[in-house]
Amino acid sequence: MCAIVGIYDNDNAARLASIALFAMQHRGQEATGISSSINGKIHTIKNRGLVSEVFDDDALKILKGNMAIGHNRYSTAGGDSILDAQPVFAKYKLGEMSIVHNGNLINKNEVREELTNNGAIFQTGMDTENLIHLIAKSSENRLRDRIKEALNKTIGAYCFIVQSRSKQFVIRDRYGIRPLSLGKLKSGGYIVASETCAFDLVDAEFIRDVRPGEMLIFSEKTNEPESIQLFEPIFRPCAFEYVYFARPDSDIDGKNVYTTRQNMGKTLAKNDKNKDFKADMVVPVPDSGVPAALGYASESKIPFEYGIIRNHYVGRTFIEPTQEMRNLKVRMKLSPMKSLIKGKSLLVIDDSIVRGTTSKRIVKMLKDAGAKEVHFRVASPEIKFPCYYGIDTPNQEELISHKMTKDEICEYIQADSLEYLSIDDLKKSIGDDRNYALESFDGDYFVTK
Amino acid sequence: MCAIVGIYDNDNAARLASIALFAMQHRGQEATGISSSINGKIHTIKNRGLVSEVFDDDALKILKGNMAIGHNRYSTAGGDSILDAQPVFAKYKLGEMSIVHNGNLINKNEVREELTNNGAIFQTGMDTENLIHLIAKSSENRLRDRIKEALNKTIGAYCFIVQSRSKQFVIRDRYGIRPLSLGKLKSGGYIVASETCAFDLVDAEFIRDVRPGEMLIFSEKTNEPESIQLFEPIFRPCAFEYVYFARPDSDIDGKNVYTTRQNMGKTLAKNDKNKDFKADMVVPVPDSGVPAALGYASESKIPFEYGIIRNHYVGRTFIEPTQEMRNLKVRMKLSPMKSLIKGKSLLVIDDSIVRGTTSKRIVKMLKDAGAKEVHFRVASPEIKFPCYYGIDTPNQEELISHKMTKDEICEYIQADSLEYLSIDDLKKSIGDDRNYALESFDGDYFVTK
Amino acid sequence: MCAIVGIYDNDNAARLASIALFAMQHRGQEATGISSSINGKIHTIKNRGLVSEVFDDDALKILKGNMAIGHNRYSTAGGDSILDAQPVFAKYKLGEMSIVHNGNLINKNEVREELTNNGAIFQTGMDTENLIHLIAKSSENRLRDRIKEALNKTIGAYCFIVQSRSKQFVIRDRYGIRPLSLGKLKSGGYIVASETCAFDLVDAEFIRDVRPGEMLIFSEKTNEPESIQLFEPIFRPCAFEYVYFARPDSDIDGKNVYTTRQNMGKTLAKNDKNKDFKADMVVPVPDSGVPAALGYASESKIPFEYGIIRNHYVGRTFIEPTQEMRNLKVRMKLSPMKSLIKGKSLLVIDDSIVRGTTSKRIVKMLKDAGAKEVHFRVASPEIKFPCYYGIDTPNQEELISHKMTKDEICEYIQADSLEYLSIDDLKKSIGDDRNYALESFDGDYFVTK
Amino acid sequence: MCAIVGIYDNDNAARLASIALFAMQHRGQEATGISSSINGKIHTIKNRGLVSEVFDDDALKILKGNMAIGHNRYSTAGGDSILDAQPVFAKYKLGEMSIVHNGNLINKNEVREELTNNGAIFQTGMDTENLIHLIAKSSENRLRDRIKEALNKTIGAYCFIVQSRSKQFVIRDRYGIRPLSLGKLKSGGYIVASETCAFDLVDAEFIRDVRPGEMLIFSEKTNEPESIQLFEPIFRPCAFEYVYFARPDSDIDGKNVYTTRQNMGKTLAKNDKNKDFKADMVVPVPDSGVPAALGYASESKIPFEYGIIRNHYVGRTFIEPTQEMRNLKVRMKLSPMKSLIKGKSLLVIDDSIVRGTTSKRIVKMLKDAGAKEVHFRVASPEIKFPCYYGIDTPNQEELISHKMTKDEICEYIQADSLEYLSIDDLKKSIGDDRNYALESFDGDYFVTK
Repeated sequence: MCAIVGIYDNDNAARLASIALFAMQHRGQEATGISSSINGKIHTIKNRGLVSEVFDDDALKILKGNMAIGHNRYSTAGGDSILDAQPVFAKYKLGEMSIVHNGNLINKNEVREELTNNGAIFQTGMDTENLIHLIAKSSENRLRDRIKEALNKTIGAYCFIVQSRSKQFVIRDRYGIRPLSLGKLKSGGYIVASETCAFDLVDAEFIRDVRPGEMLIFSEKTNEPESIQLFEPIFRPCAFEYVYFARPDSDIDGKNVYTTRQNMGKTLAKNDKNKDFKADMVVPVPDSGVPAALGYASESKIPFEYGIIRNHYVGRTFIEPTQEMRNLKVRMKLSPMKSLIKGKSLLVIDDSIVRGTTSKRIVKMLKDAGAKEVHFRVASPEIKFPCYYGIDTPNQEELISHKMTKDEICEYIQADSLEYLSIDDLKKSIGDDRNYALESFDGDYFVTK
Repeated sequence: MCAIVGIYDNDNAARLASIALFAMQHRGQEATGISSSINGKIHTIKNRGLVSEVFDDDALKILKGNMAIGHNRYSTAGGDSILDAQPVFAKYKLGEMSIVHNGNLINKNEVREELTNNGAIFQTGMDTENLIHLIAKSSENRLRDRIKEALNKTIGAYCFIVQSRSKQFVIRDRYGIRPLSLGKLKSGGYIVASETCAFDLVDAEFIRDVRPGEMLIFSEKTNEPESIQLFEPIFRPCAFEYVYFARPDSDIDGKNVYTTRQNMGKTLAKNDKNKDFKADMVVPVPDSGVPAALGYASESKIPFEYGIIRNHYVGRTFIEPTQEMRNLKVRMKLSPMKSLIKGKSLLVIDDSIVRGTTSKRIVKMLKDAGAKEVHFRVASPEIKFPCYYGIDTPNQEELISHKMTKDEICEYIQADSLEYLSIDDLKKSIGDDRNYALESFDGDYFVTK
Repeated sequence: MCAIVGIYDNDNAARLASIALFAMQHRGQEATGISSSINGKIHTIKNRGLVSEVFDDDALKILKGNMAIGHNRYSTAGGDSILDAQPVFAKYKLGEMSIVHNGNLINKNEVREELTNNGAIFQTGMDTENLIHLIAKSSENRLRDRIKEALNKTIGAYCFIVQSRSKQFVIRDRYGIRPLSLGKLKSGGYIVASETCAFDLVDAEFIRDVRPGEMLIFSEKTNEPESIQLFEPIFRPCAFEYVYFARPDSDIDGKNVYTTRQNMGKTLAKNDKNKDFKADMVVPVPDSGVPAALGYASESKIPFEYGIIRNHYVGRTFIEPTQEMRNLKVRMKLSPMKSLIKGKSLLVIDDSIVRGTTSKRIVKMLKDAGAKEVHFRVASPEIKFPCYYGIDTPNQEELISHKMTKDEICEYIQADSLEYLSIDDLKKSIGDDRNYALESFDGDYFVTK
Repeated sequence: MCAIVGIYDNDNAARLASIALFAMQHRGQEATGISSSINGKIHTIKNRGLVSEVFDDDALKILKGNMAIGHNRYSTAGGDSILDAQPVFAKYKLGEMSIVHNGNLINKNEVREELTNNGAIFQTGMDTENLIHLIAKSSENRLRDRIKEALNKTIGAYCFIVQSRSKQFVIRDRYGIRPLSLGKLKSGGYIVASETCAFDLVDAEFIRDVRPGEMLIFSEKTNEPESIQLFEPIFRPCAFEYVYFARPDSDIDGKNVYTTRQNMGKTLAKNDKNKDFKADMVVPVPDSGVPAALGYASESKIPFEYGIIRNHYVGRTFIEPTQEMRNLKVRMKLSPMKSLIKGKSLLVIDDSIVRGTTSKRIVKMLKDAGAKEVHFRVASPEIKFPCYYGIDTPNQEELISHKMTKDEICEYIQADSLEYLSIDDLKKSIGDDRNYALESFDGDYFVTK
């Protein structure tokens, strides 16, 4: 996941970047950072923590200048170091640059090996450092040409923003796997952000999505960003953004996330093969299961009810439960609406099942609270393959759908029935006008260049 | 508001108290505290901040003993001092005691004046300090009799737990205005808490509500708490708990909060005098407006939609917006679902209107996002009077319904129509088997003793 | 110990109070606090920590007004609660007051018992709370008369400053045990402080010491403070202030601390009964042993050398040493000058020996570093009795001079010889024109009223 | 400045490194860090702040392994980034390495330019990053040979410790400008540290100084470190370590710092050209001026007195003084002993004068406190040239001795007389058996290779 933002030609660049990052906090809570450029010098502040913790007025006073890029980092294995926060800054032959990146470079290790064999050093674990090296090593004279050359050696799903002392270069990979949109700020200048939900908070108007394979160049000489088509586009946007990642009020490549999720629920209901029981209510696993549950309810005419409450005060550290309170952690986050569900047959909707442990705990919690039956419905297909395109899925061995059939999973999570959305239905729910990136579901690892 | 909890006869008393307070965090986020008793000594830790911030393992190690009381403090005017956190501890003639309190004593100033005239000092602004003084000044020999005598001089809405070195005394006022329930811990001992939602997290079974005018005494001599009816009960539970305060999964005096809120929405729909327009969707103001909106939608058959997203990352301090971003604060918390509501006629449901400023901002936000019409519906009656029974309402001059008629408010908040739930309909929604405390709506300040 | 300060009639009252407390930080590092008065309202900020940690600009912005009192708290057993920081604030019959106190009330428990028997409550462990109760309970009409009446029931060593909404009352006990001086601020108004070293930092001119038994009243009606002799003076200032507590650049009751310490060293040298050995150098235990060591060296003509270095970076918490590093703690604070002392005979000067453990560690450290002989000299008499007059000495059982003879102590700390300053020599060193409080040395607990 | 430490073959490696860094805190307070190696993996923790703040037990639990290197960073201009803390870690062709560095590379910019021209990137402002690049780019197969090759391209004053997954390489430049000593830990293994004062705290025995131009290699195959003479030694140790930097209890290259400082004071007294006045006392500017002042006093027979007190509670941030309190900052750190110096003629000894502003403030402070005359003596020669060998001196334009003659400086700081130690006398004071690095005094920038 992760979120990136770029602000160009606005005197409040870093402030606007921080507000946009705040709006995209759901894409990464581990660390955050912003680089601004002023008078030919780049200033960077980055740290672990939430946007609202890292960027106070003191920080923003340091980040002067009329251009800024920013990043929210999702918690990933091993990357606990503060050095693994972005933007990544470097001095190189042409001066200074700073980079933010959302995505995943699948040839990271090969590139690293080649680079280190030629004497390069890596100070972080981030693939973003690869790109900086490739740019610095290019023999081209202009930064735009260096970036092009670097990207020619880069395979993966990516959205980059490279900021030099006076310019910004925005690149989306040829498949358009991760989202990236362009907007115009009412207070002047431009914004590029992973999700359009950031535009509302900073008073920006959506212009268009950045095109697959496109490089946008913001420079002092132009008012409008220059557009260069770097690679021939082969559009395959990530379906998982619609299923789970993006905020429901965002529009990704022309499709509203909330609406597509509702469609997933509706389609799930329409094609539910297992309707022998009579469910008393449709219950979402909050918050991300809500739109699909509303869709399921409206299609099936079964009443929608808030059978599970989500507690938003859960912090990072808390009282360790005693031995007898094993299931406390999930219950501190989710509480069953006891009086409502007692003796009732529930149709529970979640957005996805990854390892199965949370689903199992939810079913147990609901049954302990008195639910007569729990029919589990998943508004996405079975996740059988790890994602290498920027989503933080676990190893294949940990994916329950890799190890078990649907019936075995149903038994494992102790549900009374279990249904998934089929791959075809997922495509239809988002809109069957496109060829989506579905590698987690179908194992089609199509990125080769 | 505020929340209180008592744990009796369990070796993890303070830990369980902290978990219960965590479950009741919605009743107060300003400060929190716990007193435990061990070996005839009371230990207290209290501080500003959330339960998950104040009570880590280090704190719990200090709070040893098999009995504990705890408190969450709601943010109230002037009470910014750490001294205004509870429990309030005191040494007095018979030894040590610690007290937690939820409610409001309406003869606070008279009692204070009498006490100070007789030489007492007050180190805090809390009315809880009154009770401690009255207990300490009593000429009775037993603590239970001192408490009785003190309560005889106390007028107001209250739930108290007084903890001595080896006993706990639990009192609910004769009107039962504020909620208080008794449960049995599966790991041993008893719990008393403001809301039953705390019982689930600590694995406790609900026994019964504490009765209006009842004192429960937990002491080493008894397994079951001793019950004494201190005052003749005149049951008038607070309607506002159902409207707004309590968590939807709590049952208060035998009525589930979520269900009563749904009923409010249904009744509102049934009796909506203003139905000339054709609303495209029912949209709740999240989170507390959701159950009523579901009720309205199910009754009216207008589709329920999540037209407003709530951002839960809003912290305490954040980047000050620039001059041009005046409305940023409400928008950082609530975001309109632009694509969904564009060109639509919305029926927006909120739980209440107090000052009117937030409602006005919500209407503006929705219209700016493209809503064609915004019809505002309030799942409670007009708030015309301040509450003196423990709810933190502002002065009467700030209450918009004190200053304006319904039509004027509709104009002020720029809604296309506005309807409230009538007082009668509110009573029916909760259940017309009882005489509720409705002073905010009808000005009936009935507490006289 | 502890330090108190009062600033009257200066628009920067709280700021000046914080600077004065900073200058007196050596008298107490556990907690600090300031109360200011403005528009008939008293504001208080107090917390654990150093003055420079608690009082930043944000804190001082809250503490508005042209009068302020402040306090530094010394670490004392059991008083770990934030409630035990001063000033102590209370509302009482006549309004608001805030008190700071340096000293110790020896009839604290009797007064508490009488007060609690009459229904009073105590929320802290501090004897300062006694005084507030006594003031509040007085039947007098004017605060000054209430304070008088309260002091009539108070036995002990004390300096108080009581601040009401518009006045300050400064009291020093009839014996003048603890120091207290009056100064005039060049920027306007007056200062009262425990030590004159505070005057330099705030640009104040020393006027005179507050007299034993005197009450100074600062009020809006007068420019000069009004002086009332409350009690007949029986002047017996504490000798320990000169020996150890006070900062060397302070003048206490007309005598400079540094000079008296030098005199102690000189007298110690003059009357040293044990001179058979030939010491190579006089080495102080830094920092408080330095002036006496200089005196000893100048009198004995033995060269003064910095044989022990003090590390000032020692913080509150640090790496726990492993099992093998038992003596690390004293060595992290004090380091021997190995090259200098190797093979040398040292005459080590410390200000006092309390429990003997530190002295033992110092001797061992010096011998481990190669010292041939360590002759220990103490610039004060043997401490055989606990102090009840405001100095934080341990119980009598822990005092090594209570349990052992001089020779036994010498053996215990493994010194080659040991000498103390006699009581008579101590008196002479400070100036034999006065009757000093010497209870730690001679057990004369003279305070009876 | 800065301090470095290496611990080899001890199970408490990181703990011992932290204690050693604590002992060397005076060499750098801005940031600190430690890298440990275990199971072929290097773990690093570094942050801004003091050693006692950064390294608590939680940090040390992460830093497992039986070898560790550490660093204290001195505050230098521009290096406010956390990225500029050391050790610097990198993955490169042969695996992982981590480096600490004390000193300054004078061909830093040339090397950087060459490296960036060849495509290298620099993520920090530290010259240490140069060395890592050079090591990584070497075509040699063994790390020791790569380090050699890298050092062949490196000009400057340096002490490095390079830690790989299982070895440590310690290098001191051919001039031995910065100190570095080798010790044997009583608990097993070896220590290398900038100053011997670190040895005492970790219970290590001094073996010898690392030789100029020597590389020590600690590897699993050997018990004793392997020694390789990398460069022909041209011994020129830094005189400033003796004058100001090092702790007085350290021995540098066989000479005790305290003793050399005393000698400087004695020599200053012996050759003082200006003795017409009769000084009443010798007063050091604490703490670093103390040994020289003792030397001056013993030679001149003028009494040594503590005329200036140093306050050690000065934290990083504090109350801003009001407009009228301009000189507060120096006075919060240093207080004049008013009673002692009033009407007296003082001979004040400081270790050096850099910009002159502090000296001017000290003279003013003493005269304001009543000193009749202030004769300023400096225990080092005039600083006329900036240091490029690892000492943080300002630009030449800011050096007062670059801009003014001795008489002009005397007038500027308002002293009654001013004398410096001559360069020859400085050499003699340390020991005229060596050719010292004296570039700050004589401008002889001798480092060429």
